[in-house]
Amino acid sequence: MTLAKQPVLVVGSVAIDWIITPTDEREESVGGAATYFSMAASYFSPVRLVGVVGQDFPDTAINDLRGAGVDLDGLEVQQDGLTFRWKGRYHEGMNDRDTLETHLNCFEQFSPKLPAAYRDSSVLFLANIQPKLQIDVLEQVERPKIVGLDTMNLWIDIAHDELLEALRRVDVLLINREEALQLSAKNNVAAAAREIQKFGPKWLVIKQGEYGALLFEPGGSVFAAPAMPLENVVDPTGAGDSFAGGFMGSLAHSGELSSTAVRTAVLWGSAMASFCVQGFSYDRLTGLPRDAVTSRHAEFVQMMALDRGR
Amino acid sequence: MTLAKQPVLVVGSVAIDWIITPTDEREESVGGAATYFSMAASYFSPVRLVGVVGQDFPDTAINDLRGAGVDLDGLEVQQDGLTFRWKGRYHEGMNDRDTLETHLNCFEQFSPKLPAAYRDSSVLFLANIQPKLQIDVLEQVERPKIVGLDTMNLWIDIAHDELLEALRRVDVLLINREEALQLSAKNNVAAAAREIQKFGPKWLVIKQGEYGALLFEPGGSVFAAPAMPLENVVDPTGAGDSFAGGFMGSLAHSGELSSTAVRTAVLWGSAMASFCVQGFSYDRLTGLPRDAVTSRHAEFVQMMALDRGR
Repeated sequence: MTLAKQPVLVVGSVAIDWIITPTDEREESVGGAATYFSMAASYFSPVRLVGVVGQDFPDTAINDLRGAGVDLDGLEVQQDGLTFRWKGRYHEGMNDRDTLETHLNCFEQFSPKLPAAYRDSSVLFLANIQPKLQIDVLEQVERPKIVGLDTMNLWIDIAHDELLEALRRVDVLLINREEALQLSAKNNVAAAAREIQKFGPKWLVIKQGEYGALLFEPGGSVFAAPAMPLENVVDPTGAGDSFAGGFMGSLAHSGELSSTAVRTAVLWGSAMASFCVQGFSYDRLTGLPRDAVTSRHAEFVQMMALDRGR
Repeated sequence: MTLAKQPVLVVGSVAIDWIITPTDEREESVGGAATYFSMAASYFSPVRLVGVVGQDFPDTAINDLRGAGVDLDGLEVQQDGLTFRWKGRYHEGMNDRDTLETHLNCFEQFSPKLPAAYRDSSVLFLANIQPKLQIDVLEQVERPKIVGLDTMNLWIDIAHDELLEALRRVDVLLINREEALQLSAKNNVAAAAREIQKFGPKWLVIKQGEYGALLFEPGGSVFAAPAMPLENVVDPTGAGDSFAGGFMGSLAHSGELSSTAVRTAVLWGSAMASFCVQGFSYDRLTGLPRDAVTSRHAEFVQMMALDRGR
């Protein structure tokens, strides 16, 4: 059986961010994990988005997502509610940030309901939301074949058991380095990976921001992908979600969980993350010519080659 | 003209360290940049060491260096002096450390004099010492062909002009990430690299500890090498110097500064650094069978391969 070019279903936040960087600011920056994920994944496979927004969510963003071919039948629009909003400030160098404000708004009571047509999805990404909701979505999908999950320190703290239950049912965990250490209660990344793989996910991607990503494979092999050293990082928001989008989109496209397919997916994820940070919101993730995407990927291959060729 | 298998000359510190890690401690741990460098480089090419020690420097270490084939004619032994001593404590996770004590001892008045037989050296590594001494050594070598240099935040601060003078005369700068940002007065690594390359070194290796290393080549290409994710890091002291040893040793062996040769050298450097941290002092860098070194290198190649093969 082949799964090639299956649609990938994503559930996660759709948000309006207020981003402050050392040199710039954008007050109504459309964001959210599911938004970035969908935009990035759309270059590789059809995308089905499950999320919720309020009446303040801009039509332009709806049009942009539709324009990228994202199926929005699963996006609930609450006419009496407001969209999830986050405000943050990045420090010099863009590696650290402070959260200034969080307003969950309609996201607070979010209870994802899959449209009937989504239930046959075979590739599924559970972006960073409450683990209980991640399990709810998983249970609404009839026969998921490739399941990825992201999470955060908050859920590791306050919903540990539910998170572990979710982890037992996923193939790939994508997680930040610090979260991996916290989840495993280890103090180095290799030990953390070995521990987390025991929790369920056979494949583990540890995202390290500007240091790239490590893939821990079943059997113990490791793949290390760099991030692209960029001089013009405009806004790092959504880099990890864009990574996940390129990664899962590529997996949905290839339809398999082999070492080569997953390593390839890591590089596509890295490429999409590198575009994401070059603009606010999903500015750089819309309307990229196929050539631009493939040459970015080729740059990554060259960064890892002992012989860079001609 | 070929330089293949030329000896590499290193000038730098030879020290006795007192190392405290979260789980262990070693009070008389032979260290110093030139020591680690020499041990690592000795697997690739003959090594000539220029440095100074006192009467407290252990004969066993002299024997170990000689056993590795390191030429010690340039090691001055001051019978009325004490060896440079450093005491430091590593934090949980081994990424940060505090210096508890530094005693320069005989290193304070160190004025490197090259034995006549060293003056024909064509491959030269100026480990982290005062830039003025680095220039002194450079001037004692007749026709250096491949010159590498390391430095630190102290010299960037207090000997900036002399450091810039030294940089104009080197081919490769190996430097930590934070030091690269400081030296260039930039806040991201790509911008820092472009600036530093204007100072002189056409090749720039930015060492990022457990995140590996970035090589910036003339012309703007980048090579990214991972570090090996290890569960058993015993003592990170000397990792950067061991990296430099593997790197310069490999360059001395190949005798050329081509992209492929330098990228290959970066991986050998990474391999030697990964051995270094698995023991105190140079414990893991002595007596490694050729097989162990080449399989470690092969593991690095596999970590960077899209298709890991069989």
